[in-house]
Order: sequence, then C-alpha cells, then structure tokens
Amino acid sequence: MEIPFNYSNLAKTLRDRRQRLAQFIHFPAILWSGHRSSRNFPANTFPFRASSHFLYFAGLPLENAAIYLNEGKLELFIDEASPASTLWHGEMPKREEIAESIGADRDFPLAELELRATGAATIAVQDSYTRQQQSQILGRTLTSAQALEGIDQDLAKAIATLRLSHDTEALSELRKAAAVTVEAHKMGMKATQNSTLEAGVRGAMEGVIIAHNMPCAYSSIVTIHGEVLHNEQYHHPLQPGDLLLADVGAETALGWASDVTRTWPVNGKFSSTQRDIYDIVLAAHDQCIEKIRPGVEYQDIHLLAASIITQGLVELGILRGQISDLLEMDAHALFFPHGVGHLLGLDVHDMEDLGDLAGYEEGRERSDRFGLCFLRLNRSLKPGMVVTIEPGFYQVPAILHDPGRQAKYQNMVNWERLEQFADVRGIRIEDDVLVTENGSEVLTAALPNQAEKIEELVKEK
Amino acid sequence: MEIPFNYSNLAKTLRDRRQRLAQFIHFPAILWSGHRSSRNFPANTFPFRASSHFLYFAGLPLENAAIYLNEGKLELFIDEASPASTLWHGEMPKREEIAESIGADRDFPLAELELRATGAATIAVQDSYTRQQQSQILGRTLTSAQALEGIDQDLAKAIATLRLSHDTEALSELRKAAAVTVEAHKMGMKATQNSTLEAGVRGAMEGVIIAHNMPCAYSSIVTIHGEVLHNEQYHHPLQPGDLLLADVGAETALGWASDVTRTWPVNGKFSSTQRDIYDIVLAAHDQCIEKIRPGVEYQDIHLLAASIITQGLVELGILRGQISDLLEMDAHALFFPHGVGHLLGLDVHDMEDLGDLAGYEEGRERSDRFGLCFLRLNRSLKPGMVVTIEPGFYQVPAILHDPGRQAKYQNMVNWERLEQFADVRGIRIEDDVLVTENGSEVLTAALPNQAEKIEELVKEK
Repeated sequence: MEIPFNYSNLAKTLRDRRQRLAQFIHFPAILWSGHRSSRNFPANTFPFRASSHFLYFAGLPLENAAIYLNEGKLELFIDEASPASTLWHGEMPKREEIAESIGADRDFPLAELELRATGAATIAVQDSYTRQQQSQILGRTLTSAQALEGIDQDLAKAIATLRLSHDTEALSELRKAAAVTVEAHKMGMKATQNSTLEAGVRGAMEGVIIAHNMPCAYSSIVTIHGEVLHNEQYHHPLQPGDLLLADVGAETALGWASDVTRTWPVNGKFSSTQRDIYDIVLAAHDQCIEKIRPGVEYQDIHLLAASIITQGLVELGILRGQISDLLEMDAHALFFPHGVGHLLGLDVHDMEDLGDLAGYEEGRERSDRFGLCFLRLNRSLKPGMVVTIEPGFYQVPAILHDPGRQAKYQNMVNWERLEQFADVRGIRIEDDVLVTENGSEVLTAALPNQAEKIEELVKEK
Repeated sequence: MEIPFNYSNLAKTLRDRRQRLAQFIHFPAILWSGHRSSRNFPANTFPFRASSHFLYFAGLPLENAAIYLNEGKLELFIDEASPASTLWHGEMPKREEIAESIGADRDFPLAELELRATGAATIAVQDSYTRQQQSQILGRTLTSAQALEGIDQDLAKAIATLRLSHDTEALSELRKAAAVTVEAHKMGMKATQNSTLEAGVRGAMEGVIIAHNMPCAYSSIVTIHGEVLHNEQYHHPLQPGDLLLADVGAETALGWASDVTRTWPVNGKFSSTQRDIYDIVLAAHDQCIEKIRPGVEYQDIHLLAASIITQGLVELGILRGQISDLLEMDAHALFFPHGVGHLLGLDVHDMEDLGDLAGYEEGRERSDRFGLCFLRLNRSLKPGMVVTIEPGFYQVPAILHDPGRQAKYQNMVNWERLEQFADVRGIRIEDDVLVTENGSEVLTAALPNQAEKIEELVKEK
C-alpha cells in the first residue's frame, strides 16, 4: 500500500470525526480493520476490505491494524512490514508515515494494544480470525454486531449517528464512486449489442470500474432475469426483445460506495408493454426523489412509490380496484416486493452489519407486512444522508405462482391482462440521492434514465 | 445456480475419481464445500468459491454442501433452497437433480450428515464457519490442512495422488481456462497504449475474463514494478520506456485455473537493455519447457533456468565468474529469487492448502538455500501433471540493497554494468505446461512470447 497523498484533508476530517464521537461516548473504543479471508488456500485470498467502522475513523484500508479512540484522540496500532513482506509486496510506508497521514496522535506496534483493552467498547468485524483477536484482547465474548449490548451498543449508536450524515470528505468520495459507476453503466449499454451473454455486458461494466482502480461495492447483477432480485448468474444469452437489468456500483479506494440500477432493451428499443411499465417505474422514481427533503419520513417515500406503481398498474388494467384498497392489501408488493431503497455510505447498505440499528429510528421495528417487511430504512430524513431510490416492477414466479397469494389477490389482478406483459420480467431504476438542506441532489444524475435516452445509449457505437 | 448440462461426462468422471480414491483409502471421507465469506456486512459477501477437494469429487460449486465418499460411492448432503431464497435468488435445482447430474449414489438433507460421521476423514476448508461445522459433526478438533495427522493425512495423500495427474475432464477445463487467459493477455497488450494507469490494462484483461463468465484464479498482478513479486497495486501511470508485467489467469466455472505472465513494453518497443534481458528469460523459459517429460526432476528444471539465467547475465557482464561457482553461491537468486513454477489444477498453486504435501515428493523437504527455498514443486514429473514454467529477472531493492548480500556477492556482480539495466525492473514469462507421455504440451501456446510478436500485439489497434 502506498499512502494516497492526494487526500490532503484526510487527517483533518478524521480528527473532526473522532472529536464528534467524543461528544457521544465517554469511554474508549477500539476498532479493528480485519484480515484477508482466504479463498481456496491460505496465500490465495479475496481482496482485502477493511471494516467500515475502522475506515470511517482511520481513513485508510490498513490491513491487520487497530485504532484506539478516546476523548477525541486516535492511537494507531499496526506492525511494521517484515523483510519477507518487503520482498514480496514491495516497500510499505512506515508506521509513523501512516500515523502522520491520518493524523494519529500516537502510534504503536500491535502487541501494545493489550495495554488499552480495559473498558474499551468495540464492534465485531466480519472475519472470524480478527473476531477471535478482538475477544482475546478485550477478555470477553463479543456479541454479534446485530445484537449489541452495553458500551458496544452505545458505541454503535454513536457511530451510526455520525455515519448517518456525511461530511465533505465522505461526499467527495461518494461522488467519485458515483462518477465511475455512471461511466460503467454507459459502457454497459454501449456494449450490449456486441455481447452474446449477460457476462459480456458485466465484463464491459466491471472493466470500467477496475480500470479506475476501484473494486465493485457489491456483487453485480447483470441479467435478463431481473425478476430474480439478487441474481448472480451471467450465463444467459441476450435475445432481441429482452430487457437487461444491471445493478452495478463502484467503491472508492477509501471504501465509499455507489449503487445504481438501469434497465435497458437488449436491441435498443423498448416494446410498447416494456415502455408502459418502464414509465410507471420512472414516474415512481422521479416523484420519490422530488419528495426528498429534511424532515420527510423515508417510509412515506416508500409508500409514495407503492402508490404510483399501483396507480400505474390500475391504469394499465393489470390491477383492479380502488388505489387505497389495493395499497391497504399490499397488492403492489406482488410486483414491487422490496423497499424503495436504503442508506448508502461506506457500505452499499450502510451499516447493515448493525442490523436495523442504523436503518431504523430508535423505537421503530420492521413491519411484518408483505409490503413493508423488506424496507431497510425507516427514519426521518436529515441533511447529509445519502439514500438510494430504487422502485421496480418484477414478475417473480415465487410470488405470482404462490397459491395463497393467487387466492388472496384473485380479484385484484387481471391475470389475462398481465399475460400481455410477459416480456417485462424485471425493471428497476436506482439512483443515489443526497438529502440537502432544502431538498435533494442526485449524485448519479449524469446517467440518463428516460426511455428514449437509454435507447440512444444502447444504439451508440 | 443452474446445473451446467453441457458437462455431459461429469457424472462418469466423478465416478471414476471416487473409485480411484477407493483404491487408496479404506475408510470413509467427508468433504465440505464451504460457505461464503462476508465482505463488509453479512449480506455482502465475496463470491462463493467451493473447496477444491470438494470440487474434485463433487464437480459443481454447491454452496453449503458435503459429500460422503466410501468404497467408491458418493452420497450428497445439501438442503433444498428455502422459499425466501427462491424469491431472492430464483429457482434452484432440486437436490435430486443435482444428485443426478453429479452421479451421486444417494442424497440427503444436510442434517443427516451426522449419521455418517463415525470414523470419517476430512480436510479443513478455508472458511472458519464451515471448519467449526466440520469439528462439530466429526466430534474432534481438526488439525490445519498443512499439518494433517492420521486418517486425515492418509486421505490428503490419496487425494494428492489423484489430483497430481489430470484426467480428460480436468484437462478440458484447464484448456478452457488457458484459452480465456490467452485472450485476456492479448487484450491487455492491445489496451496498453490507450491506458494511462496500470489499472486500465487490468480492467481490459479482467473484463475479458468476466465477459467469459469466469472469475480470476488469483489476484492479478499488472504492474510497471514487476520487481515487487506479488504486487497488488495498480495506480502507477504508464510511461514510455516502462515494461509492464501482467500475471493474470482465469478460472472456469468448475474451478480449474490458468496462470500466465507476459511482460511487454508500454510503448510497443523493448529498449536494447530490456530486450537483452528478455531474451535471456525467454531462453530459460523455452529450454525448461523443452526438458519437460516424464521422469525428469522438476528441481532440475528449476536449476536449468538458474543456469541459463546465470550464463546470460555473465555474457551481458552483469555477473562475473564461473557459471558453476555462481550457481553454487546462488548468485542467480539475486535476480531470480523464486522457483521456476508450481503445480496447476483446481488451485493456481495446486493443493497448496496441504502445505508441501502435494508439491514435495514424500521424504523431501524444502531447502533453506536462498536459490531453492521458494521452490514449490520438487517431484519427478509424471504424465498428466500440469506445471507452470515461469523464469524471471527482477531488480528487487530488498535483495540488491541488502548490505549482507551486497558484501557476499560484491565481486560476483558488476554493479556498474548493472546500473545500465535500470530500465529492467522485472520480467517474467510464464506458461502452463502439461506433461505428456513422451514430452510436454504448452496449454497456453496460443499466446506469443517472442519479443517481436509481443511488440506487434502492443502496437495493434
């Protein structure tokens, strides 16, 4: 690793973050970065990804490191590179150089971390090797990050409060991730007519992200089967008449994510049925974004999407009845079974390692309603939050062929009319939106989403 | 996952493999496939990679599955997909369909695996969640796969014996991986003059691999600092006069790897010093491959590479003295500090999870000599083995600036002459070679390695 010296404000930003943390907690905290996970043998690992909580306060993706945060100060614990490591991995920055670049107050070898263990809170990282170290050094069993207790829970709440509203440096990173993601999607559209498989479009899109020296923030979805919500298969041939759904996002070197979905026609022309549904989803997308401003309940934005989709499907004759009755019955969720979006930051579902602690305002819990149970965010919006807005329409066989649901919604769905929309298996339109002081800013606005512009991009040579 | 029905010989191949296993062991074995490792939160995982030992006998990359092998029979243990999984991940094949496609003799839910635990050998997988399951079900602590004991060690030796010589199906997969890797390297050369960073070339190369619906078999090295042997940085700008070293390989859907390195001039033209060294490395590469045939000691091939490199460097005036003396003193290892190659199969360093059990013939141990300690393979070659041949030349600061080594090799190196080769930081030429009945076959022969042809490919538009 070389220190990215172009992050000139990094030390100052990190100092601000830990001083704000000190306003919320009055006990020390230790955050670990984690270790690589091995793939098929110990030396062949997955790419290193530092814990997001560590990254938020330590800035750089340092492997096998820890930071001790106390009263607004940061102490860095990391070992110097061994001579063998220098042979294989090249010269690494010295600990004191790293410490300087992140504005650490002091720095020590990792072994000295034990001296700071007393009374320190922490949050469990993802790799179990490091989790064992955490337990061992703190002298206690860690609870899962999704069910924290005591000071660990207090720490998590404090961190969530900070990470919910992004500072300037965070927004600068999120904009970089967004810009590369926009470029990847444009390339994906352009590459479609020269691709025979879904994988071809994926290669073109991820190639752009890799070329910008970024990883993907999550497993890409690039599929003609958009109705499989978390599809990770890329082997289907592209056929004229198919819609291709691509949910692909870049992550910056410092770990900040983008999350964008577009759906386009493989042959560059939406069929009339595809276009009808596309425009409903786009209307929901646009009106949800228009509604975003501080003080608005995110759940109301979700319900707005549900309402617009319901109304559109009634107008197309796919749903039957009063909009309010259909919504009450969650009829929209037959075709839009997920939430309208989620928090975005260092994680693509930001802070989801903490369960619903970040996504749900204190005292709120997930609904068990069909139309709400998958909603990941239920808070009043505040300036500095970044959320995704991603309404969709899907014909999921597991839902539409379910006998219980068929019976329940028998009269609310015009099943014959629905059959005419067989060429619309899945559509989603997703952008990343910053809540500003008096409205919102779409970080991914440079990527067109109107049907005609999408068609133009697909046809572009 | 859909069952890849194009693998028509899979069931027969797997049956042959387990029947051969039964000739070596007379106790049952359970092999687990493993779980996904989480990246930054539980739902955001690294791509699944099944354990290679599991893949060898079960064929398909099934998540969270196990196989029970006994007396030539295979029983498959895997749970049916849950309804929630069907909603998010689509229809999955039924257990009995999977069982049929891999020719399993019986199939059961995973919970029934406990009934087969008594007296079964195993090998620990990479992810710790599954390792805990292994311990729990077998009722004993597992030793690390690098230090096996008892029946586990006997099982590992038997598997290594089988996996050392590839059958027809394995070779067919290795050829597929090789073909895509060749294409990726050609694309990398072609993309170089349009790239500003190393990352640009990496994106072009990995884009090809992804477009063929394959993952990379290992972390790509694409760098102008080839002297950093395991370089994983891609941020350096490409400058005319630089050499770019690319060590990139694809892996098939069933897990079989390729491992190829080429080194090319960024501007399409080797300097005379770069060309001089390149031709020495190429001579070592070609002569090593010529020597490959059954019965030859792989260590002798390594020593041949050392000898050719030493002779070349003496002819260029970089090394001084008698070839035999220089080799005796490991002077070549100043510039060629790694082994000439390794086994290749389901792992890019095949079976390296077993330590040197597969790489080193029984009774042999790693040398501690500077020139031999990194040699990963020390066996007599046999038909069906696939090995890499990858000689190189590097100016590694950690070696050449080491005061102890400078003193030891003071008179053997013409340091002034060496300075004239400052534009040769790292060169490696690596191909994948099958040992045949009476010689060898280069699986990656479609990728040129002669300097002029490399230059042509870089200049191609």
